[in-house]
Amino acid sequence: MSRAITLTTDFGLTDEYVGVMKGVILGRAPRAMVVDLTHGIGHQNIRQAAYIVHAAYRHFPVGTVHVVVVDPGVGSTRRIVLLATEKHLFLAPDNGVLTLLLEDKTAKAYEVGCAHLYKQPLSTTFHGRDIFAPVAAALANGMQPEETGNMLPISELTALRLPQVAIDSGRQTIQGSVVVIDHFGNLMTNIHRDAFTRLFAATETVRISIKHQAIHGLATSYSATPAGALLALFGSRGYLEIAINGGNAAEQLDFSMGDIVWITHDI
Amino acid sequence: MSRAITLTTDFGLTDEYVGVMKGVILGRAPRAMVVDLTHGIGHQNIRQAAYIVHAAYRHFPVGTVHVVVVDPGVGSTRRIVLLATEKHLFLAPDNGVLTLLLEDKTAKAYEVGCAHLYKQPLSTTFHGRDIFAPVAAALANGMQPEETGNMLPISELTALRLPQVAIDSGRQTIQGSVVVIDHFGNLMTNIHRDAFTRLFAATETVRISIKHQAIHGLATSYSATPAGALLALFGSRGYLEIAINGGNAAEQLDFSMGDIVWITHDI
Amino acid sequence: MSRAITLTTDFGLTDEYVGVMKGVILGRAPRAMVVDLTHGIGHQNIRQAAYIVHAAYRHFPVGTVHVVVVDPGVGSTRRIVLLATEKHLFLAPDNGVLTLLLEDKTAKAYEVGCAHLYKQPLSTTFHGRDIFAPVAAALANGMQPEETGNMLPISELTALRLPQVAIDSGRQTIQGSVVVIDHFGNLMTNIHRDAFTRLFAATETVRISIKHQAIHGLATSYSATPAGALLALFGSRGYLEIAINGGNAAEQLDFSMGDIVWITHDI
Repeated sequence: MSRAITLTTDFGLTDEYVGVMKGVILGRAPRAMVVDLTHGIGHQNIRQAAYIVHAAYRHFPVGTVHVVVVDPGVGSTRRIVLLATEKHLFLAPDNGVLTLLLEDKTAKAYEVGCAHLYKQPLSTTFHGRDIFAPVAAALANGMQPEETGNMLPISELTALRLPQVAIDSGRQTIQGSVVVIDHFGNLMTNIHRDAFTRLFAATETVRISIKHQAIHGLATSYSATPAGALLALFGSRGYLEIAINGGNAAEQLDFSMGDIVWITHDI
Repeated sequence: MSRAITLTTDFGLTDEYVGVMKGVILGRAPRAMVVDLTHGIGHQNIRQAAYIVHAAYRHFPVGTVHVVVVDPGVGSTRRIVLLATEKHLFLAPDNGVLTLLLEDKTAKAYEVGCAHLYKQPLSTTFHGRDIFAPVAAALANGMQPEETGNMLPISELTALRLPQVAIDSGRQTIQGSVVVIDHFGNLMTNIHRDAFTRLFAATETVRISIKHQAIHGLATSYSATPAGALLALFGSRGYLEIAINGGNAAEQLDFSMGDIVWITHDI
Repeated sequence: MSRAITLTTDFGLTDEYVGVMKGVILGRAPRAMVVDLTHGIGHQNIRQAAYIVHAAYRHFPVGTVHVVVVDPGVGSTRRIVLLATEKHLFLAPDNGVLTLLLEDKTAKAYEVGCAHLYKQPLSTTFHGRDIFAPVAAALANGMQPEETGNMLPISELTALRLPQVAIDSGRQTIQGSVVVIDHFGNLMTNIHRDAFTRLFAATETVRISIKHQAIHGLATSYSATPAGALLALFGSRGYLEIAINGGNAAEQLDFSMGDIVWITHDI
């Protein structure tokens, strides 16, 4: 039985690029299930890909190979890396796209150098086809990083500077920001439920502020508030989310990526 | 051998939501073939999903599990239901999205309550991941509704009020409306070929009217009319369709959902 | 083991059309892997489909069945054809979409007429569902064109007049044009690396001209030039490509399909 493979790219679905990657995988790992996470990452938007892969990987079976090809440096000397956590494998250019997975201190990193697997002649513009797909197929077939002799353990990966959450226990305030806006116009922040429960009791009424808007109290679901109302809740990713029930918060209230969000005690 | 699963949602393909549902299914029913019907349903457009699922399901193998997640009430007390026809299974929120399938009087309905299958902690915002995917996987693996003890037979599902077709045998007129506009700008109506043949002889010349346009006679195919001509035919779904050969009828003639369509004898 | 099937259409992903084709295939070839090349071909854009299929097919396993449904003549008397090269099968309407594959002089062509396989009643508007999907499934299951008695060898397929490359050895000039613009705004030309190497030494400095822009020398990769710079290189398809590192050449410089591209010695 093959491991599963997920694909996350900025290739879009209009060209043949994603199909070609699947063709290469199919030739080398005919039984691997290949699942698209998304090919709608913004052009070269490494940060967006970092959040999406981090939100999704844990819902796949143990052993899944997650391939991320958002790769402005394709053809340059940037490294291609494999990050092996206890349960998942991540194959990506070393450009910071795996930053959020580095929290896992047991993860081992390798520089990928198994040139015997690559499609030849190796292009300088489509490593998704020539390197990522063949290596992913080999990993899906059970190749171990240690076994190949061509993956070198490395001690550090490139990390992005991602917006941080500031927790002020004295003034009982959490400050974070909008890091993803989804298809529905819902705003995903970087404030995790764990940070919240450390500071606030479940029964406490909080105020969530963003730009000129204030939201009083957390909702339990989108539909628990009146249609059209602005609401905040801890969403399915475990992070604070701001939404309009039945609407598109980002468009209707002109919210953007990076907007600051505060949680305080509601007086 | 697993049953197949189809997915119909309004999630779009930019976020990781569809991929995550597939990850959950893959973990529980590794051999199930998962086919996307579409993830491009308009935001919370239950009616559009109802027409699409109804048009598509019959072309899948007997036993397929059709999952529809267009779910404005996610996290509320709205029921999740299973509709079992003789040949297919439909899993959806009880919001009317299965209305067109209720024509099948042999269909049995169940309220889904098999909490032991759900992903925990259960979110209030992403039941596609936490409920629909695990239950679909269990059904694909052969779980019978009767067997679980957690699916309760119910006698009635929520139904949408869909636009009706009016047939006037005396004046030999059929009045219907545009219910779907497809990617090509073709207009799908709710007038089925069966209603037509009950009223008109095959040899009869009819007039099809929509807004200020009149079409004389039915075409046999798009390309049987001159390029750029407005035409009407009974399409692949069995319903009257209005199109421009090589063009986009909806855009070029400003037709919309809900536009009234008449068929009369052409004098 | 089934052969793989690829799908290339202009159906888009909003309607159920692609899913329905997969449903039909699943019913008849349950083990066939089905891979989407793209469903984003422009409405009835046969030429675009011709380039995409030609760029992609070679990366799939030997024996793959490539199905192309860009079919303005659906329902007319246009033929449906099978082209069998040594390694791949192509199933398409006979409208020129296979033009670039006719270079392979060993290819055998057949007119598809195996009506016993078609879905009945046969529609005049959706042969993707009623003809292409069932025939592709039979081919994936191992059906041989010779064996069926319903595929007639034919000597000629419809061919598109595609823009040609002009090579002037005396004045050392190659003139081609932009034939595809991809999701990134990169311009793909019809000038192949082989034509180039016949005329220019690897060490020679060339000038690439397009509209009012001149590019001096070939780049080795996108990222080998400064961000924002216009560059030319031989891309992953083997053809000359014009791009902006980190940008969108088509949008930023208003390039279009058909724009003429010259390569000359750079003085």
